[in-house]
Amino acid sequence: MFWQRKDLLGLRQLTPEEINLVLDTAVPMKEIIGRKIKKTPTLRGRSMVTLFYENSTRTRTSFDLAAKFLSADTVGLSASSSSVAKGESLRDTGLTLTAMGVDVVVLRHPASGAAEYLARCIPAAVINAGDGTHEHPTQALLDMFAIREKKGSFAGLKVAIVGDILHSRVARSNIWGLTKMGAEVRVVGPATLLPAEIEQMGARVYTELDAALEGVDVVNVLRIQLERQQQGLFPSIREYSRLFGINQRRLERTAPDALILHPGPMNRGVEIDPQVAYGSRSVITEQVTNGVAVRMALLYLLTGGEHSAISN
Amino acid sequence: MFWQRKDLLGLRQLTPEEINLVLDTAVPMKEIIGRKIKKTPTLRGRSMVTLFYENSTRTRTSFDLAAKFLSADTVGLSASSSSVAKGESLRDTGLTLTAMGVDVVVLRHPASGAAEYLARCIPAAVINAGDGTHEHPTQALLDMFAIREKKGSFAGLKVAIVGDILHSRVARSNIWGLTKMGAEVRVVGPATLLPAEIEQMGARVYTELDAALEGVDVVNVLRIQLERQQQGLFPSIREYSRLFGINQRRLERTAPDALILHPGPMNRGVEIDPQVAYGSRSVITEQVTNGVAVRMALLYLLTGGEHSAISN
Amino acid sequence: MFWQRKDLLGLRQLTPEEINLVLDTAVPMKEIIGRKIKKTPTLRGRSMVTLFYENSTRTRTSFDLAAKFLSADTVGLSASSSSVAKGESLRDTGLTLTAMGVDVVVLRHPASGAAEYLARCIPAAVINAGDGTHEHPTQALLDMFAIREKKGSFAGLKVAIVGDILHSRVARSNIWGLTKMGAEVRVVGPATLLPAEIEQMGARVYTELDAALEGVDVVNVLRIQLERQQQGLFPSIREYSRLFGINQRRLERTAPDALILHPGPMNRGVEIDPQVAYGSRSVITEQVTNGVAVRMALLYLLTGGEHSAISN
Repeated sequence: MFWQRKDLLGLRQLTPEEINLVLDTAVPMKEIIGRKIKKTPTLRGRSMVTLFYENSTRTRTSFDLAAKFLSADTVGLSASSSSVAKGESLRDTGLTLTAMGVDVVVLRHPASGAAEYLARCIPAAVINAGDGTHEHPTQALLDMFAIREKKGSFAGLKVAIVGDILHSRVARSNIWGLTKMGAEVRVVGPATLLPAEIEQMGARVYTELDAALEGVDVVNVLRIQLERQQQGLFPSIREYSRLFGINQRRLERTAPDALILHPGPMNRGVEIDPQVAYGSRSVITEQVTNGVAVRMALLYLLTGGEHSAISN
Repeated sequence: MFWQRKDLLGLRQLTPEEINLVLDTAVPMKEIIGRKIKKTPTLRGRSMVTLFYENSTRTRTSFDLAAKFLSADTVGLSASSSSVAKGESLRDTGLTLTAMGVDVVVLRHPASGAAEYLARCIPAAVINAGDGTHEHPTQALLDMFAIREKKGSFAGLKVAIVGDILHSRVARSNIWGLTKMGAEVRVVGPATLLPAEIEQMGARVYTELDAALEGVDVVNVLRIQLERQQQGLFPSIREYSRLFGINQRRLERTAPDALILHPGPMNRGVEIDPQVAYGSRSVITEQVTNGVAVRMALLYLLTGGEHSAISN
Repeated sequence: MFWQRKDLLGLRQLTPEEINLVLDTAVPMKEIIGRKIKKTPTLRGRSMVTLFYENSTRTRTSFDLAAKFLSADTVGLSASSSSVAKGESLRDTGLTLTAMGVDVVVLRHPASGAAEYLARCIPAAVINAGDGTHEHPTQALLDMFAIREKKGSFAGLKVAIVGDILHSRVARSNIWGLTKMGAEVRVVGPATLLPAEIEQMGARVYTELDAALEGVDVVNVLRIQLERQQQGLFPSIREYSRLFGINQRRLERTAPDALILHPGPMNRGVEIDPQVAYGSRSVITEQVTNGVAVRMALLYLLTGGEHSAISN
């Protein structure tokens, strides 16, 4: 099977076959990361720009290393840099980068839909690295990689996503991807942080953590943005932690071998207890490796690579 | 013919033969950018530093990609970084970079003459990427590449440069380069933004746009720095746009196949109308590609490359 | 002889044999920097991150070029980037980088002991690029490289370190390293900037410059942090310069062929006179080259290289 799309904008549009193609391609990529010599000439002469209008060291570094392990050239542009400050439009910036010979633009932007807009403006491939509260597909794909690797498949799995669902593009992308693959997705958090439309996306909504965790195979703990508390969206950090913080005791409700995921960086002691974060069920550190692997796979597929060529 | 100079400081000093050598060398470089695999090992083991005391994502990225497409190593230093903040002199910074093994220093600096000063201090090659209101030779060379590519040669061409001539190093470098190659250069803008010495540089000065555009083959529209308006150098953005903004109607005066250039980033609707910017006569996006090609050519020539070796 | 340690944290722990191994390995590395083509494939497929919680263009660039000359991949993370801003712990940042496949983390941190802490947390190699007022081992190794190269050996040499000893990790690392190799180390500066424990480290303490310089073979002039004066630790810049500034006249006391070192960037006219800084005894610019060479050697040794392989 070949990858047909110019861009990766979200998981909503992808078919189950496309999701499987990305995850399958990421398997040999993960092996490359595990080697002493982490380098293949696969994308030599291709170039990727990370165009970040919001900061994210973690995601940017992950894309940067993914590109470098495949021998691609990389350039990083961030919101503090001048063209952005000079108010150049996203379209013009994209056209400029394409005219410079850039093959892939990785975009992070505060506006929902920014990646789709850019993708329509330019011939280069666009990867959405987070747009507003819309989607963050590479994060969801790396979460799904972890789940598939440990659980074998998605069909029939119960996955709980805990935290600020309202503002979370990670939650949205996970819901689109997981329900598409046959998993049951539950979301739980303070009522003020649960958007009304979430049930139409196919997820079940809970407001009590214990009920949500009952029998689940995976718990994906979202990062709490501390500034939301100042906006009055939940009473206090201590209160949040008491009601929705994941600790060993809360995990007694889940299936015995339930996986713990967190997109990082963690507020340890707030949304997740250190014992859980570094415990035997946690795949949090391994998610980071999966992130590089999934991004290698996407860079490879979006620049015309075939799955069969890398997996042999 | 071989390149003899250690540095590229401005177009004022260059001979027509040298300008042609750069433009000729840029032709095969542009072909490399157009390829799927944009990479040659030409400058493997050479290193370039972009030392920017003023921000410019666009120029810095263009140099960075130019170096990478030729397999050179690149490092970016900017004014916000510490040695600059610690007040180290330009000379000491240059000596330090040279001692680190850097072959080419690309300098952007707010002081006119900074590049010449640095070039005298250090044995490494210096490329002026804009010094004060003095010169911005790589921008002029990419403009000239566009003109030569579309018009065949410079002799007898009429080129109008529109905007803030007083503060524009782009205008200065274009005037030196174009008049040297036999073109007629006209400059036009608000009287407060037309320096007295411009006629001594060989350009004709106009204060009315229609007169300046009469029969020209090329219109190079400069970016308006909006802060100049606050300094009282022109009445208002709307007034500027009405008097000097380039739109379809104004272009009726030019030769029918006149090219439209702009160094970017554009203030669309201020100095240039979107219809013109994205119209069929505009080579604005292609200028960006030319910029990478010209910078590849310069990096190649300044590190000892021969034109014949790349063009065969 | 093989390098056995996972990390380079300080010179206090190293044996004389280990110090010699680093310096011996740096010799062929320095030859690479002197070549037109500065590139070997030695570390192809290895990756280094510079994780800097304090700014230092000079040190970061030196590591970056060292890695690139050996064909390693590099990524730069600094304190202004988001994960740090988001308050992620050093441990979590380190674990994340390791999970991304990074082989070497170069850490600069304002807290003394930060490098040792990180080294215990992660399996990747850690190089201390300065931690608080504790150690800055790569700076001391490059100083020692300069001394050994010019003087042949350390035994019996007299080395004076001049300036703010109290806050200087450079001074500390030099004292540990030089005394270990058999040199006599003298420190001199304002009484307020001489820590009590310095004599226990094996250095002789002086408060008068002329006495300290008497017959020395090397003068290492530390950079004065101008903010210390505001903290009342010495009377005024002029006073400091008069009492402890190194000029030609003060050097009459030293051995006739005494070397002048300075870690840079210099406050010319404050702690060092330009005549001395650019004079024939100064190895200040060459120290910069040595810095890249020593860092190449360390990257090589810490990723499993053998000295014999590179020196043949």
